[in-house]
Amino acid sequence: MILSEILEKVDIKIDSKIEVSGLNTLLDANKNEISFLENKKYINDLEKTNAGAVLVKEDFKNMVPKDTIAIVCEEPYLTLAMLSKFFAPKIIETQGKDCIVGENSTIMPNVYLGKNSKIGKNSTIMSGSFIGDNVTIGDNTIIYPNVSVYRDCTIGDDCIIHSGTVIGSDGFGFAHTKTGKYIKIYQNGNVTIGNDVEIGANSSIDRAAFNSTIIGNGVRLDNLVHIAHNCILKDGCILTGQVGLSGSTILNEYVIMGGQSATAGHLEIAPFTTIAARGGVTKSITEPKKQWAGFPLFEHRQWLKLQGRIAKLLK
Amino acid sequence: MILSEILEKVDIKIDSKIEVSGLNTLLDANKNEISFLENKKYINDLEKTNAGAVLVKEDFKNMVPKDTIAIVCEEPYLTLAMLSKFFAPKIIETQGKDCIVGENSTIMPNVYLGKNSKIGKNSTIMSGSFIGDNVTIGDNTIIYPNVSVYRDCTIGDDCIIHSGTVIGSDGFGFAHTKTGKYIKIYQNGNVTIGNDVEIGANSSIDRAAFNSTIIGNGVRLDNLVHIAHNCILKDGCILTGQVGLSGSTILNEYVIMGGQSATAGHLEIAPFTTIAARGGVTKSITEPKKQWAGFPLFEHRQWLKLQGRIAKLLK
Amino acid sequence: MILSEILEKVDIKIDSKIEVSGLNTLLDANKNEISFLENKKYINDLEKTNAGAVLVKEDFKNMVPKDTIAIVCEEPYLTLAMLSKFFAPKIIETQGKDCIVGENSTIMPNVYLGKNSKIGKNSTIMSGSFIGDNVTIGDNTIIYPNVSVYRDCTIGDDCIIHSGTVIGSDGFGFAHTKTGKYIKIYQNGNVTIGNDVEIGANSSIDRAAFNSTIIGNGVRLDNLVHIAHNCILKDGCILTGQVGLSGSTILNEYVIMGGQSATAGHLEIAPFTTIAARGGVTKSITEPKKQWAGFPLFEHRQWLKLQGRIAKLLK
Repeated sequence: MILSEILEKVDIKIDSKIEVSGLNTLLDANKNEISFLENKKYINDLEKTNAGAVLVKEDFKNMVPKDTIAIVCEEPYLTLAMLSKFFAPKIIETQGKDCIVGENSTIMPNVYLGKNSKIGKNSTIMSGSFIGDNVTIGDNTIIYPNVSVYRDCTIGDDCIIHSGTVIGSDGFGFAHTKTGKYIKIYQNGNVTIGNDVEIGANSSIDRAAFNSTIIGNGVRLDNLVHIAHNCILKDGCILTGQVGLSGSTILNEYVIMGGQSATAGHLEIAPFTTIAARGGVTKSITEPKKQWAGFPLFEHRQWLKLQGRIAKLLK
Repeated sequence: MILSEILEKVDIKIDSKIEVSGLNTLLDANKNEISFLENKKYINDLEKTNAGAVLVKEDFKNMVPKDTIAIVCEEPYLTLAMLSKFFAPKIIETQGKDCIVGENSTIMPNVYLGKNSKIGKNSTIMSGSFIGDNVTIGDNTIIYPNVSVYRDCTIGDDCIIHSGTVIGSDGFGFAHTKTGKYIKIYQNGNVTIGNDVEIGANSSIDRAAFNSTIIGNGVRLDNLVHIAHNCILKDGCILTGQVGLSGSTILNEYVIMGGQSATAGHLEIAPFTTIAARGGVTKSITEPKKQWAGFPLFEHRQWLKLQGRIAKLLK
Repeated sequence: MILSEILEKVDIKIDSKIEVSGLNTLLDANKNEISFLENKKYINDLEKTNAGAVLVKEDFKNMVPKDTIAIVCEEPYLTLAMLSKFFAPKIIETQGKDCIVGENSTIMPNVYLGKNSKIGKNSTIMSGSFIGDNVTIGDNTIIYPNVSVYRDCTIGDDCIIHSGTVIGSDGFGFAHTKTGKYIKIYQNGNVTIGNDVEIGANSSIDRAAFNSTIIGNGVRLDNLVHIAHNCILKDGCILTGQVGLSGSTILNEYVIMGGQSATAGHLEIAPFTTIAARGGVTKSITEPKKQWAGFPLFEHRQWLKLQGRIAKLLK
């Protein structure tokens, strides 16, 4: 799309004929992508951006790098939301190649296989599962019944996805207008799942707003786990039942989270960290190999000690 | 049905030929409905009722309004449960008109469309979804794969329902006999969802016991959210991942609830209230626009202060 | 299978031709089963075992009963995991008898019925549901749309299973190698559900690693409930929305658990216990009929009192 043309759709007039193909964050955008700066917190990212154009408020106009076009608007995040719709792919592809199924793979009855998708060798897709368009599934992978894999997602080799799990549903993202209407940020990214991953029943992993929600190799997710958009789970992470990760949480290698624990999002947890059941993480954890518990979060031993002190209040 | 005849099925003899069509609460019942009083707390509702008949204990017989028939029984709630079965609609309609699908709407393969249902224009129902009998879905609405919409529910225009979500499952209601057997209260109400609503993956919204569980316009629900029967969410409410609402919770306009927060049910939350992640609401919140946190619940600033004081116990 | 042959697959040489048919715990194993001792805590079970063979570390070799073969290995649990794969049944049976459906039962379109399965009389299986191989479902039972019942599970009479619920998904079990690779413990048990059970929407009940996850008669589970492998819920238990049980939790008769409450697993709760919403049970509760709350858990009255004391810290 031509920048000037797409901006016209949101009533912004700019005289630029550069070709744009999508939206992205300041740090990840390339010269064919539009980015945005809403939150001052990310101002250092503005000068590093390689975006073709960036939505900014009047105040920050002069801080936009010289090779990037500044698109001045009152509410960059809201404008981004309004633009996102125009970059959204089709809900269902009707054109394209039929799904390629590798040798010795089994597709049970009542499975939908999307266009331009590909399933490897020795894999099994069980009844009622939905494999959207442009999905790639590797070798020796089992998709149990009634799993939904949205378009553009990828699942590696030797994976097991249990029933009812949803891969690639939209992240929870929207801006709001002054009158309180919510404007959806179309989630144009995807989910990529590595090799040797097992995901329990009725879990949900949201696709990224931009780029990918990433599940590394060897990850184990239990039932009813919620992974929000743009999370990154590095190799070997273990999340037990009913854990919830807010958006853009980064779990480094071998993080273990106990049942019903959760994170607040936009934070990073160091490798080999253990969060006890019900732990609530609201800030990044930088030191590896420690054990934490509680909400607010304490080192596990401290939390136990604190509970002892609290119990004494009864006396 | 004739009142005397239906009561005979639960071994109550009453000489009345009035026609009854269903069950309802004291305040909502009309002259063709049966209501009940079990809990003294609702005694003021008894004198206001317009119900055709009401199940009451001997003690309250004289407080039943003169135009309402008093049906005296030992355990009104249990009798109500036993009666509810006779008012339950069929699980599957085999008669009736085929579903009407509006122009430019797409029904993918492996979708079930119930009798007497109606889907508007430009809507998409994706593979594996179930649209029960007598369901109405509006225009421009997307139902992602493997969604289940139970009979009699309605979904408005411009809605998005993500995979695995269940609309209209039975509320969690039962009475118990003296021997400890649970008697199901058939959930003969429905769910009505307004316009411009987005619901994430693997959430569940229970149908009402009587009347409707109501989701207002513009509401946003994230993944794995649980809405119990007879809840009312007014316009613009936002519930993030893994929130749980107990039965008959009323959220006024633009209430925001953070991840894993919950309510105890039979309470009301004022407009523009924010409940932080993990907040547990056990009493109504009457003052609008305030922020709350914790379980037990405190004003957010107080909760933060309290956590500071608690942490000091470690010293 | 012959013991020596199966052990060869994991590079253990033993000269025994006994026939083995599966894996099991020390207490439950019979003479055709292999068991294991990893955790010293279970050492008293070792002398009581009737297992045909048992995986043990060198140190415990001499404590193995004389009729049981000691299989010495460095990491018994890891070896067990590696062996479990060889005892796993097929994912999909292609041979065997077609499912038997009793009179007056209704199977809606887009249902998969596995081999050697059996559905009783007057039951209803709704669209999109998956009934795996060797499943037994009783009379008068309703399976709502998009339910998944994995192979070998049984569901009794007069049950109601709501949409999206998964019965028999794999328990969350794995050992890990020294290099951090997780080795799946194939979950070769099943789930057995009694009579008159109702399970809400999008709940998940994992199959047992060995033997059965058991749901007793009259149990009521709400939406989004997570039951891990090898749990036992005795008759009349009630679990409300979003409750989570860790593995091998035993709930005795008529235990009631409030919303979002949870257990830590490998513990037992006495009959008629009530756990309030959000309660977190980490130890067995032996005295019946008491009410508990909080995390850490206190008797309910004590918990309320404690919250009062904590609130006073604000002054």
